[in-house]
Amino acid sequence: MTAKPKSRRRAVAKRSRKAGLPPGTLVYTGEQQVESVRITVIDYDEQHVQEKQVASPEECLPFRQTPTVTWINVDGLHDVSVIEKLGKAFDLHPLLLEDILSTGQRPKFEDYEKNLFIVVKMLSFSEDSQAVETEQVSLIIGPNFVLSFQETVGDVFDYVRDRIRNAKGRIRKLGADFLAYSLVDAIVDGYFVILEKLGEKIENLEGELVREADQKTLQKIHSLKREMITLRRSIWPLRELIGSLQRSESALVAESTSLYLRDLYDHTVLIIDTIESFREMVSGMLDIYLSSLSNRTNAVMKVLTIIATLFIPLTFIAGVYGMNFEHMPELRWRYGYAAIWAVMIVVASIMLLYFRRRRWL
Amino acid sequence: MTAKPKSRRRAVAKRSRKAGLPPGTLVYTGEQQVESVRITVIDYDEQHVQEKQVASPEECLPFRQTPTVTWINVDGLHDVSVIEKLGKAFDLHPLLLEDILSTGQRPKFEDYEKNLFIVVKMLSFSEDSQAVETEQVSLIIGPNFVLSFQETVGDVFDYVRDRIRNAKGRIRKLGADFLAYSLVDAIVDGYFVILEKLGEKIENLEGELVREADQKTLQKIHSLKREMITLRRSIWPLRELIGSLQRSESALVAESTSLYLRDLYDHTVLIIDTIESFREMVSGMLDIYLSSLSNRTNAVMKVLTIIATLFIPLTFIAGVYGMNFEHMPELRWRYGYAAIWAVMIVVASIMLLYFRRRRWL
Amino acid sequence: MTAKPKSRRRAVAKRSRKAGLPPGTLVYTGEQQVESVRITVIDYDEQHVQEKQVASPEECLPFRQTPTVTWINVDGLHDVSVIEKLGKAFDLHPLLLEDILSTGQRPKFEDYEKNLFIVVKMLSFSEDSQAVETEQVSLIIGPNFVLSFQETVGDVFDYVRDRIRNAKGRIRKLGADFLAYSLVDAIVDGYFVILEKLGEKIENLEGELVREADQKTLQKIHSLKREMITLRRSIWPLRELIGSLQRSESALVAESTSLYLRDLYDHTVLIIDTIESFREMVSGMLDIYLSSLSNRTNAVMKVLTIIATLFIPLTFIAGVYGMNFEHMPELRWRYGYAAIWAVMIVVASIMLLYFRRRRWL
Amino acid sequence: MTAKPKSRRRAVAKRSRKAGLPPGTLVYTGEQQVESVRITVIDYDEQHVQEKQVASPEECLPFRQTPTVTWINVDGLHDVSVIEKLGKAFDLHPLLLEDILSTGQRPKFEDYEKNLFIVVKMLSFSEDSQAVETEQVSLIIGPNFVLSFQETVGDVFDYVRDRIRNAKGRIRKLGADFLAYSLVDAIVDGYFVILEKLGEKIENLEGELVREADQKTLQKIHSLKREMITLRRSIWPLRELIGSLQRSESALVAESTSLYLRDLYDHTVLIIDTIESFREMVSGMLDIYLSSLSNRTNAVMKVLTIIATLFIPLTFIAGVYGMNFEHMPELRWRYGYAAIWAVMIVVASIMLLYFRRRRWL
Amino acid sequence: MTAKPKSRRRAVAKRSRKAGLPPGTLVYTGEQQVESVRITVIDYDEQHVQEKQVASPEECLPFRQTPTVTWINVDGLHDVSVIEKLGKAFDLHPLLLEDILSTGQRPKFEDYEKNLFIVVKMLSFSEDSQAVETEQVSLIIGPNFVLSFQETVGDVFDYVRDRIRNAKGRIRKLGADFLAYSLVDAIVDGYFVILEKLGEKIENLEGELVREADQKTLQKIHSLKREMITLRRSIWPLRELIGSLQRSESALVAESTSLYLRDLYDHTVLIIDTIESFREMVSGMLDIYLSSLSNRTNAVMKVLTIIATLFIPLTFIAGVYGMNFEHMPELRWRYGYAAIWAVMIVVASIMLLYFRRRRWL
Repeated sequence: MTAKPKSRRRAVAKRSRKAGLPPGTLVYTGEQQVESVRITVIDYDEQHVQEKQVASPEECLPFRQTPTVTWINVDGLHDVSVIEKLGKAFDLHPLLLEDILSTGQRPKFEDYEKNLFIVVKMLSFSEDSQAVETEQVSLIIGPNFVLSFQETVGDVFDYVRDRIRNAKGRIRKLGADFLAYSLVDAIVDGYFVILEKLGEKIENLEGELVREADQKTLQKIHSLKREMITLRRSIWPLRELIGSLQRSESALVAESTSLYLRDLYDHTVLIIDTIESFREMVSGMLDIYLSSLSNRTNAVMKVLTIIATLFIPLTFIAGVYGMNFEHMPELRWRYGYAAIWAVMIVVASIMLLYFRRRRWL
Repeated sequence: MTAKPKSRRRAVAKRSRKAGLPPGTLVYTGEQQVESVRITVIDYDEQHVQEKQVASPEECLPFRQTPTVTWINVDGLHDVSVIEKLGKAFDLHPLLLEDILSTGQRPKFEDYEKNLFIVVKMLSFSEDSQAVETEQVSLIIGPNFVLSFQETVGDVFDYVRDRIRNAKGRIRKLGADFLAYSLVDAIVDGYFVILEKLGEKIENLEGELVREADQKTLQKIHSLKREMITLRRSIWPLRELIGSLQRSESALVAESTSLYLRDLYDHTVLIIDTIESFREMVSGMLDIYLSSLSNRTNAVMKVLTIIATLFIPLTFIAGVYGMNFEHMPELRWRYGYAAIWAVMIVVASIMLLYFRRRRWL
Repeated sequence: MTAKPKSRRRAVAKRSRKAGLPPGTLVYTGEQQVESVRITVIDYDEQHVQEKQVASPEECLPFRQTPTVTWINVDGLHDVSVIEKLGKAFDLHPLLLEDILSTGQRPKFEDYEKNLFIVVKMLSFSEDSQAVETEQVSLIIGPNFVLSFQETVGDVFDYVRDRIRNAKGRIRKLGADFLAYSLVDAIVDGYFVILEKLGEKIENLEGELVREADQKTLQKIHSLKREMITLRRSIWPLRELIGSLQRSESALVAESTSLYLRDLYDHTVLIIDTIESFREMVSGMLDIYLSSLSNRTNAVMKVLTIIATLFIPLTFIAGVYGMNFEHMPELRWRYGYAAIWAVMIVVASIMLLYFRRRRWL
Repeated sequence: MTAKPKSRRRAVAKRSRKAGLPPGTLVYTGEQQVESVRITVIDYDEQHVQEKQVASPEECLPFRQTPTVTWINVDGLHDVSVIEKLGKAFDLHPLLLEDILSTGQRPKFEDYEKNLFIVVKMLSFSEDSQAVETEQVSLIIGPNFVLSFQETVGDVFDYVRDRIRNAKGRIRKLGADFLAYSLVDAIVDGYFVILEKLGEKIENLEGELVREADQKTLQKIHSLKREMITLRRSIWPLRELIGSLQRSESALVAESTSLYLRDLYDHTVLIIDTIESFREMVSGMLDIYLSSLSNRTNAVMKVLTIIATLFIPLTFIAGVYGMNFEHMPELRWRYGYAAIWAVMIVVASIMLLYFRRRRWL
Repeated sequence: MTAKPKSRRRAVAKRSRKAGLPPGTLVYTGEQQVESVRITVIDYDEQHVQEKQVASPEECLPFRQTPTVTWINVDGLHDVSVIEKLGKAFDLHPLLLEDILSTGQRPKFEDYEKNLFIVVKMLSFSEDSQAVETEQVSLIIGPNFVLSFQETVGDVFDYVRDRIRNAKGRIRKLGADFLAYSLVDAIVDGYFVILEKLGEKIENLEGELVREADQKTLQKIHSLKREMITLRRSIWPLRELIGSLQRSESALVAESTSLYLRDLYDHTVLIIDTIESFREMVSGMLDIYLSSLSNRTNAVMKVLTIIATLFIPLTFIAGVYGMNFEHMPELRWRYGYAAIWAVMIVVASIMLLYFRRRRWL
């Protein structure tokens, strides 16, 4: 996740290089992450399933005519011509195509009448970098097709594919809107995995805080805080998105899907809720960290004070009898030395008593 | 309550393991807390009461036909098949069943037309762990039945059962909606008990803060803050829930119940209000704690400064006359030693006066 | 006001003991504060006024029939039977009666169709405890009567009584709604007195802050902050209350009273506004207090540093020439002693110059 | 502006003394600021202007009948009878008159059907006290008259008077509503002058912060913060006021005035905006101030540490060879003294290197 | 950007000098930034483009009659007469003209029925001053013309001009509303460039924070914070502006432009979003900075304490045996000196162990 702000900055940077181009100009603002674009088609109805990988967007065209549900998934966005051809084939608005390619988008839902457009963020936890990675997924819902666009290969949709292949659950009986819902649902389910990782991190950090907190702990707290900022930015708009999808009166969303969307909406609320309480926990940790710093300074000060205050007067006394005056009667006393030890012990004891009364010991 | 975040995390964890399953798949996301599921049926109208424990969900079926009010309470959610059978018997939506089993839910109210679905959190204060424990309770209100699902045996409903058995109050005369209201009311009444406990803790902590605050006090303040976060998360949505239940135009909620719901609504507002002012108190405590730390450092510094500043110059003087120069006329003076004592006393007195003027003494 | 949280806690405590009782059960949640319940009746129209103290609720019944305006005031709520009888006599809803007896209520307005129900907090400043005291006042507005319930004898209504007795102002010509408005107006006017007291306290505290702030000042700031929390809790809901009373289309509120309610509404807004700016002032004071602590530590440090840094090197020099080496040529020099003094003075002067340049002196 | 809270307190105090009086009782809650009430009448239409100072409210009556626009300005509110007579002459509601006399009002707009009532705060910067001074101005807009009430002589309306006298701008052609708009516009224009003063103060303070901040700077920051609170309290309600004036469907506000009100509304938004960003700047200054305190403590500590840590070990070494043991071989060495100097220089150098590596030097 | 508050102040200052002038008076509140006003006309339809620079506003008049789209751009606002003549030629409302000249405006959209008025801020990053510079741009959309007013020469519209000249994109086929949209879009695209610059600054600052933070870093953080305040002030109202432009039912905005406005709206939301997360990052940096200060004080304290606590007791011991008592038996012991070294080493070791146990080493 530490990589996030950079990638965001990069997205903004690319975006800024686009400044001045007419709206609807297709420029991929992300980084090329796969060698070649991969297009996969899954076509199904209650009876049949057909799954194939196609070489060019034109091969998708025949599926548009069939009454079956067609899911076309595109991995890799760097080849603008592919997106453009698909756009023509499925009659998509140029602004919509532009949004697919701008990977710094906020999650959003837009109703283009002939089709619905959804942008969401797919999150995954990379064990390598110990960071959350974000990938933009764009969905287009048409009368009997769903187009999905991803920046790179690899996603959280395998369960959905399995359900289609094995005719598990309702998915084979229902339309494109249910397929789209299932995809978003899979992405949202992925958020729970991320939340779990974050929860673990918070717990570890709490332990660390109690045992031994240092500047590195602070850095960890702040990187966590930042991950939460990114997460929130991905998920907050999602709630609104699903809400307006549910309320939308588009003919493309069947009545029956609405209950599922409500359920999905509840999940996003739950996630937001959890993030908010994580945030409060992290804030609390910062307080504990800062006050434990303060406490430590205090403890150090106490030791210094006790030692210094004990010995400074004693050293002074020793200093006095180290003076070389000729006429210092005490120096000649028989028990002068013993007496001075006695005085010093008494002084030290009084001080110790004072410290104890002040509860410094 | 310190156990809360963990259990939440665990719920999120379970939830995350569910990722990818089709919606409506029944998986219990909590922990098994009872050995076997216990189903209790209370069936009543104004004249009769019948109460029995049934072995299997099928035994509940006959009650569905009767015009009497039937309350079926299920303790223990780990046996998914029981929930499934009950779901079939009472014609419940699969998403609703899924929600019953997901114990990390936010309190919510959903209108499934044929029945109303309520999820609330039942709180209890465990004297053992000195922590608040949360249990998810799901209620389903049908035309003449109420189903309630709890994670474990033991609840705050005994008063309601007594009232049904002894025909106390209005409850025997009214329908399933009033029963459901009574159950939620009992849960909300339980919140007042928790608030009292929290109030006590705050008062104790305030005393501790005045007497002797240390790092442990801080930890207590933060655990209190955290309990309040959890509490708020359980109760905030409740207000909304009761509000929309009251405004709902479902035929399942009688006109006469509405006044009671308004009353219940006021109680939740009062609880939220109290939590908010508890929160402000706890924040105030944190401020006091931090500034008392600061004050203490200050006090320690003052003592160190006074002692050090008093003796450092005196020690210097003694050091000077401890030098071994051959030609130090003062060392030979008759009253050199006495004079040096006089000088030192004067220096010390001037310093003490300065400290007094600066109000350090 | 320091007594407030405790009394709130006590109210919550009592409330929590009520847990499980059926709704509408009458239990007084406050503390008995008067020996016996005192019921006073004032009955008036434009021509006549009759005022008497009655022994039992039954004696109030005749007044219900008359077309005159009747104001029945009850001091003391511990005798539940009295409230119950009055409830029956004036046909009040059991939930309403329950609310009268629950003294931990939030201010609220409820429309029971046959009558309007208002709960407000009457505040008074107790010179003894230097604290604000709260008393719950419940008002019921019927077609030609107003019932008022107070926890204890003594209120801010004497001016209203005088106006009724002496036929001052509009009050004798108008109905029960205007009487109720006058009572709430009297309570709100009382808030201005409290605000004045708080304003005085803030001013005193500001003076104290400038002169000499210590831990006690902090405690005072926090107790003030807390009083403000309590005050806000009493007054915020009031605004809403008066707003909905004004908007209510109840036949019990005459058109002509509406202008007066708008005026009253403005007063509550003004009070809330004043409290908010008091709060900001108190927050500002906390900042000043904390930074003055910091400043003081700083000042102490500076003195310590100057003294220590001045004398530590000098003492070292003295220490060097206090060594007992046989071969230390300087010790034998004629002006060795004088030279060493010169060196020490030069060192000290350089340091003092350095301190001055750094603006520490 | 430092005088503000006091005057507010005084207003609250007066207000609190009014407690218990029937609503509509006329009591001036401000302080008498002029010797005698001064009433000025300006009567104009497109052709004529007449301006005169009248001795008694009765002299204003004839102007009420004429079709010309009449502006009656009253300076000084302490003579309640004058207000009362004007109220009768122009048929004003008693609550309206009461509001004119209560100088602690929030800015507000009220529609009394027969006339519109506006209360605003006129601000002026007093060069004497270097503080903002507030004066309450009440405006009543009738069919062809405007009444304005001020606490004292002197206002920001001279430009408006000039425009009427010299028939500059639209003012002579338009009605009473445009006159009222012009007056409020003049007051709002005055706010820009105040903002400029505040902006200057902030800039000065920023310079001071960089050069040399002390406790007095903090006090200045806080007094600025407080001025901003007061300012905001005067201006926030104004936006709402102008907004509802603009939306009001009163026949007293001509369609054509609406555009001007929109313009005025924009000005208030701009002012609020500027105040908000001033507030953020002032908050930022507080942060800088506090952290510069911290920095300074740090700098002081560093010097102390360096000096002390350098000399403490050296002094110890000197102390060792100041001991009087009979058998200390080093004391007799030929180059013992030189060797010890060497040792001390090495120790000091090592320490200095360590400090440099830690970047303390 | 550090120059910003000053220019704002200057704008407020000018504004304040305008106080009292009748509304609609034309006064330029900015600073003259170009020598002479430059008026450029671009007139186009699908077939033709004509571009010329005109000397006086009167030359623009013929273009008003033609059915082609006319874009008149004015650079330099100091010559009020030019604005006035254009205003007359295109029949603009005086308040609108006043707004063009008041350069301290908030971005806003106003519907004057005959034309639409938009004020926006054009931002550019000046490499010289390393600061963001703001320029106010006013747009007036009429039936077939767009007027744009800028304070100075040089803008972000060159891409738009190119597209018109080269007939790239849709622009030549669509009306004045699309031209206006394209201009605002170009300005918003410019914001992304600014965001990138800010992102870079934040990243640099983060590096600096880790390496070596001092008072200058704090100043940088605060100047960044301030730039963000300014930016937000320019952009927040823009969202609202575009939103109401989109919702406006003016006949001047074609249906087809609406989709483009929605797209533009999304961009502003994305920008606001990015600014908000930048703000959170900057706040986080402040926390890190402050706590690293605290940490450093702590580290310094630790070293001081360790050195002082080690040597103070040792110096005391040395002091004791530096006393000149005649009867100090230890001084005569054969191995007294060695023993005392042993004692001192033991004492020092115990202390070092203690420090290690406390994890100070």
